[in-house]
Amino acid sequence: MGQTLTEKIFSAHTNKQVSAGEIIESPIDMVIGNDITTPLSIRAFEESGATKLANPDGFCIVMDHFIPAKDIASANQARISRDFAKKHQLKHYFDERDMGIEHAILPEKGLVLPGDVIIGADSHTCTHGALGAFATGMGSTDLAYAMITGKNWFKVPPSIRVVFKGKLQEHVYGKDLILEIIRQIGVDGALYKALEFQGDTIEQLSMDDRFSLCNMAIEAGAKNGIIAADSITKEFLASRKSLRAEPKYYQADADALYEQTIEIDVEKLEPVIAYPFLPSNGKSISQAVKDDLKIDQAFIGSCTNGRLSDLRIAAQILKGKRVHPDVRLIITPGTQQIYKDAHQEGLIDTLLEAGALISNPTCGACLGGYMGILGDNERCVSTTNRNFVGRMGARSSEVYLANSAVAAASALKGKITDPRKL
Amino acid sequence: MGQTLTEKIFSAHTNKQVSAGEIIESPIDMVIGNDITTPLSIRAFEESGATKLANPDGFCIVMDHFIPAKDIASANQARISRDFAKKHQLKHYFDERDMGIEHAILPEKGLVLPGDVIIGADSHTCTHGALGAFATGMGSTDLAYAMITGKNWFKVPPSIRVVFKGKLQEHVYGKDLILEIIRQIGVDGALYKALEFQGDTIEQLSMDDRFSLCNMAIEAGAKNGIIAADSITKEFLASRKSLRAEPKYYQADADALYEQTIEIDVEKLEPVIAYPFLPSNGKSISQAVKDDLKIDQAFIGSCTNGRLSDLRIAAQILKGKRVHPDVRLIITPGTQQIYKDAHQEGLIDTLLEAGALISNPTCGACLGGYMGILGDNERCVSTTNRNFVGRMGARSSEVYLANSAVAAASALKGKITDPRKL
Repeated sequence: MGQTLTEKIFSAHTNKQVSAGEIIESPIDMVIGNDITTPLSIRAFEESGATKLANPDGFCIVMDHFIPAKDIASANQARISRDFAKKHQLKHYFDERDMGIEHAILPEKGLVLPGDVIIGADSHTCTHGALGAFATGMGSTDLAYAMITGKNWFKVPPSIRVVFKGKLQEHVYGKDLILEIIRQIGVDGALYKALEFQGDTIEQLSMDDRFSLCNMAIEAGAKNGIIAADSITKEFLASRKSLRAEPKYYQADADALYEQTIEIDVEKLEPVIAYPFLPSNGKSISQAVKDDLKIDQAFIGSCTNGRLSDLRIAAQILKGKRVHPDVRLIITPGTQQIYKDAHQEGLIDTLLEAGALISNPTCGACLGGYMGILGDNERCVSTTNRNFVGRMGARSSEVYLANSAVAAASALKGKITDPRKL
Repeated sequence: MGQTLTEKIFSAHTNKQVSAGEIIESPIDMVIGNDITTPLSIRAFEESGATKLANPDGFCIVMDHFIPAKDIASANQARISRDFAKKHQLKHYFDERDMGIEHAILPEKGLVLPGDVIIGADSHTCTHGALGAFATGMGSTDLAYAMITGKNWFKVPPSIRVVFKGKLQEHVYGKDLILEIIRQIGVDGALYKALEFQGDTIEQLSMDDRFSLCNMAIEAGAKNGIIAADSITKEFLASRKSLRAEPKYYQADADALYEQTIEIDVEKLEPVIAYPFLPSNGKSISQAVKDDLKIDQAFIGSCTNGRLSDLRIAAQILKGKRVHPDVRLIITPGTQQIYKDAHQEGLIDTLLEAGALISNPTCGACLGGYMGILGDNERCVSTTNRNFVGRMGARSSEVYLANSAVAAASALKGKITDPRKL
């Protein structure tokens, strides 16, 4: 019996043929912590009596949630990670001196690679599956275990094969693919399973779109989302300044056992917008515009959609125009490099001229942290990944999840708008 | 008997010869509110039964303290000003669509002019005295009175004449002039008085330096700081896209009555750094470096020093170098225009390459709001205006006030550093 891509990666890591359902212990290639989850891992690490990281170059801390410090508590919390990074002379530590959202900056820096097993104390760690890695979120104490031992245990997830066929239509992106899957299977439709994305649509998809797609695998309950590395992946890797290690390329076997296969013909897929209060509440944009929903805020950013292509899409839509006077448009580039590249291309100027507010890279607004919190009864179109009750602010506020084109078009018109009909 | 500059402005506004100590009622040319003070003014305005602003084009709201919203409370608070601005169709309303710190954006937009009487519900309203206006901070209900009537009462302040003589040395700026005065006269040295700045040093001072100088008049307890408009002022005004009204140029009479004259020879003045916990705790930088004070954060920004020249100074010092690994350098341009101009000049790229974090314009860090709060026992060199206990965060944190060159040099070296000795 053949193997899925996820099984292939775990087999390579454990030097034996593993299959879905098996409980294994695997070495970890990269352990990711951030400013709000790492302090707990550090405490567990230190309470264990450990003094050295099992694999210092396979551990990174990205300070991205409440940095620069939102308040005294977050400043004190940040200190714990700062001190640990310094004490252990961490090679991979990112803070104000080179800011980025963890799931944007790690691929950018060549720190996550095809064939890797990656864990992070952040639910959207599954983003890195876009590079052909197994990547999943874990708790802070699970992270500590990997910090101490360099390994962790996994139940090898069964895989759902999702096959996308056809050419994406105008203003339909990776974000719409994942919102559509979640709409179809629900927020627990892939519980503890791998979502393995295949098909000719994927083969044409940019890395930015692939990251966006895999990023929200967790919103269907998936353990991981994964796309086999191909020429587009290799091109992305070739353009990195350096790579942490040699990439390892695996493919699923033709006779791999999938628990289920979902085929989606994208030719007719429109931009999808997920209504509150679940990512599975997707509607097509042409359905949504009928509801004539005024908005107070539009947000473009986060580990889902804060990449260069998102800023390009927004700039294209907003060029020479002005954000609606009743709307605040907040744009948060995923990393300093994205910000610099966007400037180089003139995107930042275009967006500022249009009345966008450009923040520094941060997870802030997405998780209701800071930098764009919603007040009572406010409505926001957001390129982020969660629209739960109170996710971005007040319990009575509403978040509509969409791609960057829908967010930009809605900011322009002051209500939920179809970017294809501007 | 001749008149001081402040007396001249009030005389022109009241159509009578006024002098220090007199209680007068004066029309107001510009009333300034921000996102945290205006809601109180709006409540008082509405409770009075008023429905219309006495002078809608002489009232502005600048959303700069907790914008984009820091949390639900600030989002809800912001809504009060947003709704009022919309209801009254305010011409001068600035939020995410054109962000700026009030005392940076108003001069930039040509909204405060020589000869004006300006009040703002913000202590640093005195900044605008740099343009030859009378400008002072007031409480929110005082603001409401002016919103309703277009006027307010003042006790005409007696003036202290401060005469600066000589040429400023390298890396000595407007900020150092005001820190030096406050060092000499103390935080209550000019209580309810005008500080009228004169002398050949002032004549050579850029507008950026003049804003920085007048900005901290309040830190000596002054009612206002003021500099007579001259060719440099006129050049600044000529480069505005538009002006709110015709500037009115006044000069103090040669025989004006000053309560006191302070002469400062600046030839020997070094950069001044104010130690915690008072702006009057100034030391020369060469004295300060002997204390070998390590820092955790450097902040360049605020209504005191977040202007283009500050970013130029920082970029000049940091070009081709990297911020010290133990330091986070946070730079907050005062307005979107400053940010755009800085980009145009390549300053933003230089600063990012050096490891600075560039935030959007906001008052955040300066007042311990957000975007760079200090944790327990942390030390910060800051270009801001107040170093009171807990001003930027934890009660045990320390803020050292300095100019942008000292802040940038200290960020580079990881400790308080003389920028002239890099």
